[in-house]
Amino acid sequence: MTQNHLLLRTLRGETVERPPVWMMRQAGRFLPQYRALKERYSFFERVRTPELAAAITRMPVDELDVDAAIIFSDILVVPDAMGCAVVMEEGKGPWLPNPIRSHGDVKRLRTPNVEADMAYMEQSISRVVHEIGDRVPVIGFAGAPWTVMCYMVEGKGSKDWELTRRFLVERPDAARDLLDRITETTINYVQLQIRAGASVIQFFDSWAGALSPSLYRTWMVPIWQRLVEAVRDVPVILFARGAHICPTELASLGDVALGLDWSIDPKRARELVPHRTLQGNLDPVLLFADDDVIVNTTTSTINALGVQRTIVNLGHGILPQTPVEKARTFVQTVKEYRS
Amino acid sequence: MTQNHLLLRTLRGETVERPPVWMMRQAGRFLPQYRALKERYSFFERVRTPELAAAITRMPVDELDVDAAIIFSDILVVPDAMGCAVVMEEGKGPWLPNPIRSHGDVKRLRTPNVEADMAYMEQSISRVVHEIGDRVPVIGFAGAPWTVMCYMVEGKGSKDWELTRRFLVERPDAARDLLDRITETTINYVQLQIRAGASVIQFFDSWAGALSPSLYRTWMVPIWQRLVEAVRDVPVILFARGAHICPTELASLGDVALGLDWSIDPKRARELVPHRTLQGNLDPVLLFADDDVIVNTTTSTINALGVQRTIVNLGHGILPQTPVEKARTFVQTVKEYRS
Repeated sequence: MTQNHLLLRTLRGETVERPPVWMMRQAGRFLPQYRALKERYSFFERVRTPELAAAITRMPVDELDVDAAIIFSDILVVPDAMGCAVVMEEGKGPWLPNPIRSHGDVKRLRTPNVEADMAYMEQSISRVVHEIGDRVPVIGFAGAPWTVMCYMVEGKGSKDWELTRRFLVERPDAARDLLDRITETTINYVQLQIRAGASVIQFFDSWAGALSPSLYRTWMVPIWQRLVEAVRDVPVILFARGAHICPTELASLGDVALGLDWSIDPKRARELVPHRTLQGNLDPVLLFADDDVIVNTTTSTINALGVQRTIVNLGHGILPQTPVEKARTFVQTVKEYRS
Repeated sequence: MTQNHLLLRTLRGETVERPPVWMMRQAGRFLPQYRALKERYSFFERVRTPELAAAITRMPVDELDVDAAIIFSDILVVPDAMGCAVVMEEGKGPWLPNPIRSHGDVKRLRTPNVEADMAYMEQSISRVVHEIGDRVPVIGFAGAPWTVMCYMVEGKGSKDWELTRRFLVERPDAARDLLDRITETTINYVQLQIRAGASVIQFFDSWAGALSPSLYRTWMVPIWQRLVEAVRDVPVILFARGAHICPTELASLGDVALGLDWSIDPKRARELVPHRTLQGNLDPVLLFADDDVIVNTTTSTINALGVQRTIVNLGHGILPQTPVEKARTFVQTVKEYRS
């Protein structure tokens, strides 16, 4: 039954009556129900307690009637499982107290046994898939290896990821080793998610734009190929934020869907890639604008991307202060869209 | 004599024997001579003392034999002159303790009398133009109003400039007023630089990429038009980092030169814009790579952009830790280039 859901039909390229809609970071950011849980449990408690993760995952489906659930987690559970500890400080972003700065640091990383070490993820997905039933599909996700490497090298968020870019250029052997290890764990991790019941996998390469097209092509496209080959059983969405080779070159990796950030015109993206599913791409700050601006921008985005092969979403994660009624206006505009 | 310099001939579209080369932030960042001065004088002392500013401006010309000097200053002298104080903390980046958060804050700004309030800039440029003689032209510069607004609203650096993007969407009237005021002061400020002897003006829109093409087109292209019309007497270089409408749409603003960041393939940029001078675009971290990587990347960038209508530069400011000999390898590679 879930297999006939709008999102999956869109990802398979079947004809649909309207595009599906969901929002990146819809689980665990802006809803008051989530904020209440945040008072009582730490970030990793929320992620690693299947009851909590499932409840948070379900919230936007219950509250806003979006067309997909995305499992509540964080891309940094992967480096944490690899032995590069992650500390989440509320309101401050992630902090990795022992960042990777040498080949020695890379060699000290471990290859986790994801079935054992990340069993909470299997349980969380199984639970939420069971609870949601055939209402909407559940999306699993992971960070793309480049973006995970950014945090591991830098140790915290950064504007330009200068240390990581230098690491790539100054220590290519260590960088290759590090990216290989992240890629291997990432593949094991998303396969675990698929076995647990995830119907779609999205990879987040949030800092793709920090690299030149030439470095991105040399280093990251082969990694994308490995990831796409490893996720054969369910549709895959690649979100390479800011990458100038997205969507054109990434579209050639196979029948992948491509996430678009708000830096590209949706009309232009559709001209460049007529035959792939495209997902995006409203600037999340538009959900602070007047209702008519939200309705008009959402409608013109659908007009530009087209009804077919389109998933409406934001161009990056929903912002924590977003008013719930504005998010509802966005979702409802897509649901009521008539071409 | 300076009028026949390689940089100005390139900007006028005349045939040249090789492309000129300089580096963004070449003055006041990585040279040991500059670091020594930093120990003794505060940031604003260095900027506002014509002897110091001129000496710092000259350093990369003397040390590396680049084809242009760029006046040592900072884009944030403009908000500071407008009454939005700027504090420069070493190693921490700029801090604006009273950021703009309401229309009331905008209305409290002042319109500086640049001749009086920024007289140090006129003196610094006159002095360095006199000292450098006809060796190389001196470039003046200012921030583009959007990027200046980003710092004024946010109060400090930011990954995504979320508060500023929200300001634009939630308080469009206040944003328009603020951008108008910044634009007016910026025009007066660069005209002062031209009167003092600047041969070229470059505008830095370092955070252009934070806006969607649609918002950038609506809000910023008319401002670019005003700036370009106001700088009629000397060539102008527009550097809109990360803007997806650069270079294509900005090229239609007139006979402007366009600065490219490293996120776009130089070959692709040249295909898109065959008839404008393009400047760029090596990733600054490449100046930490092995010499052969620097030589090869620099050479292939020139091959891609072409010898004519090209200014070789980095894709953003040179990084503070860059080894001097690596910067020299970069400059020499351009100087020895043979097509």
